[in-house]
Amino acid sequence: MEHPERMQLSHAPRLLLGAGPSNISPNVIRAMSAPMLSHLDPEFIGIMDDVTTMLREVFGTTDGFTFPLSGTGHAGMEAAVANLLEPNDILVSASNGYFGERLSNVAERYGVDVHQVTGEWGKVLDLDAIEAELKLHDRVKALAVVHAETSTGVLQPLDAVGELAHRYGALLIVDAVTSFGGSRISVDDCNVDFAFSATQKCLGGPPGLSPVFMSKTAHQVIANRTSPPATWYLDVSLLQGYWDGSARTYHHTAPITMVYGIWEALRSILEEGLDACFERHRRNGIALRAGLRALGLDLLAPEESFVPQLTTVFIPSGIDDTAFRQKLLAKHNIEIGSGIGDFRGSIWRIGLMGENSTQANVLLLLSAFESLLPLWGFEVPIGGGVSAASKIFSQR
Amino acid sequence: MEHPERMQLSHAPRLLLGAGPSNISPNVIRAMSAPMLSHLDPEFIGIMDDVTTMLREVFGTTDGFTFPLSGTGHAGMEAAVANLLEPNDILVSASNGYFGERLSNVAERYGVDVHQVTGEWGKVLDLDAIEAELKLHDRVKALAVVHAETSTGVLQPLDAVGELAHRYGALLIVDAVTSFGGSRISVDDCNVDFAFSATQKCLGGPPGLSPVFMSKTAHQVIANRTSPPATWYLDVSLLQGYWDGSARTYHHTAPITMVYGIWEALRSILEEGLDACFERHRRNGIALRAGLRALGLDLLAPEESFVPQLTTVFIPSGIDDTAFRQKLLAKHNIEIGSGIGDFRGSIWRIGLMGENSTQANVLLLLSAFESLLPLWGFEVPIGGGVSAASKIFSQR
Repeated sequence: MEHPERMQLSHAPRLLLGAGPSNISPNVIRAMSAPMLSHLDPEFIGIMDDVTTMLREVFGTTDGFTFPLSGTGHAGMEAAVANLLEPNDILVSASNGYFGERLSNVAERYGVDVHQVTGEWGKVLDLDAIEAELKLHDRVKALAVVHAETSTGVLQPLDAVGELAHRYGALLIVDAVTSFGGSRISVDDCNVDFAFSATQKCLGGPPGLSPVFMSKTAHQVIANRTSPPATWYLDVSLLQGYWDGSARTYHHTAPITMVYGIWEALRSILEEGLDACFERHRRNGIALRAGLRALGLDLLAPEESFVPQLTTVFIPSGIDDTAFRQKLLAKHNIEIGSGIGDFRGSIWRIGLMGENSTQANVLLLLSAFESLLPLWGFEVPIGGGVSAASKIFSQR
Repeated sequence: MEHPERMQLSHAPRLLLGAGPSNISPNVIRAMSAPMLSHLDPEFIGIMDDVTTMLREVFGTTDGFTFPLSGTGHAGMEAAVANLLEPNDILVSASNGYFGERLSNVAERYGVDVHQVTGEWGKVLDLDAIEAELKLHDRVKALAVVHAETSTGVLQPLDAVGELAHRYGALLIVDAVTSFGGSRISVDDCNVDFAFSATQKCLGGPPGLSPVFMSKTAHQVIANRTSPPATWYLDVSLLQGYWDGSARTYHHTAPITMVYGIWEALRSILEEGLDACFERHRRNGIALRAGLRALGLDLLAPEESFVPQLTTVFIPSGIDDTAFRQKLLAKHNIEIGSGIGDFRGSIWRIGLMGENSTQANVLLLLSAFESLLPLWGFEVPIGGGVSAASKIFSQR
């Protein structure tokens, strides 16, 4: 092959209701087409400043340091452990899903002494178990938790976790990949020291940037390191020299168009209003859950702590996971997510993130489910899902 | 600030003739607006396969492993040293500019035993000095060089370097950030084991991806490591599991739209034809050099080894570097690059990269220089630069 035969990318649009990426808002696409600027252009620096200011707003911090890392959510995860922790530092990593375990693995690579507190997948963390682990060590440098566990759809309340970390003098690292922009995080109120997210979930942007937050305490701890982190690309002190203050020291060439994209994504959310945005995600998530339950399906995440933007539902017995999802794509042009880790093959993950969190998508998904489930002999009440969801929507 | 007052990014386009980023081709912008796909969608995997195949073509390899890393050029640099070298391995880093030194710094962070052979900035490397350093050690794991040094505009011939590395049993790492897509690299012919580049130079895409090449030998060396690299995000073995073969193991969510962009950037280059594309860059670079010389300016990079897509020219005495560049932007809407490192304040760097490497841009830049230089009392022959360049263009 010299070059592909086709002259342009010509695939059809799909409705992406999986675990992310989600569809991009047209405004974000348009923003990303703005004229290219160089990474030290004063005009671009103004855009960078807007982005850090808006990130502070969405993270819920008044004086923390925020910026988007030039990588995906996993780059944010690696930056957290690589910068906050030095080799042999103790990290207590509380894990009740795939991404909690991932963070432990990444930290171990950097020589961190990781102690994992493993909780049941699909449940919130057991704070007593975490406290017991914190008590075992002289000096725990950091505690890591996942805010919205993308493998299970469980939302971890952060206030008590933050209080616990604070009480034991540990820094708190939070994986906010799926929560950011869809659920309130309030890093200042919850004593969070480092949080990272991604652009392709509730921000309605393409994957490629990882918004991060760092507290003043974290900044101080990093400044006091005995040696710099092994990673240069994700060294937040160097990055701070480019994103913050007056020096604007060249580190690497920022991914300009991706920064345009997050500028617009954040602007849209703040124009809608954070409260309104979170309430929209919450209400659509509740309606979807009501609809799925009305169809006779069982939900994984508990009523008191589910992620509204990512609904996890058990696959009824007798239904072929892959065949069902393929049919959903072929007949209705909708993609949903399969289970991963412990829940591979036993759950579906349905995302209603960013622009995709709409009443229309809830009703569309439920009616698609109603038409497909009977193909495998799983009888559902005709119109039951749609009507249960509509009941939620009519309560205003 | 709740959100920025302006509703959209509204800055004016500029002609970016600096050291990169360069302007993006309209086709790349359009490709990046293609409908979002998920990172494991078969349609997207087809696009990934196209990209790796086209990268092999541009890198000049038949059976090497190629893919774009989800980060900028510096991520590629870090991936090279983090994956090929283990702590205490010996790296000989030959440096005659800013980016050679940068690679040494990044490698040191990973505990690599770096021995830098420092050459004069603005000259090609002294192979005898490199060989002397290689001789000093029992076992040099790798030799690193920069193909097109972005701080000086010097092009390093790779064949003799490759032969030298091979003779001493060292892997050859090549920084191809500014050369890739503008100058032939031929990794197979030159015994290159790892090369990395970026999208915002001669590919005519936005910054954000780093195309990498890895030889079979490099693959084997990495497979035989005693421990994995500290970086998980840039672990090429794990990335290979996603980009190559049939497993397509989830590593991180690929930056989908950036991959669309590089797909189109590579397709355009191969449609033009590699020979034609390199010749275009070469001819426009020669014409620009002829024009600048006709204006009485001195060039930094020598006649026998200049980077055609990045011309480095000394700032005549009496001219205020910053004021000149500001005037060029204000009056002619053209951005050129300042000097960095040893050449800060003493040279300009003029890029003719990708879509921006055109006869029109050469003539425009020269006529802008002709009109501005006299403002600082630097007398130039009227029309001299344009006419010298035109002479080159008329030789076909």
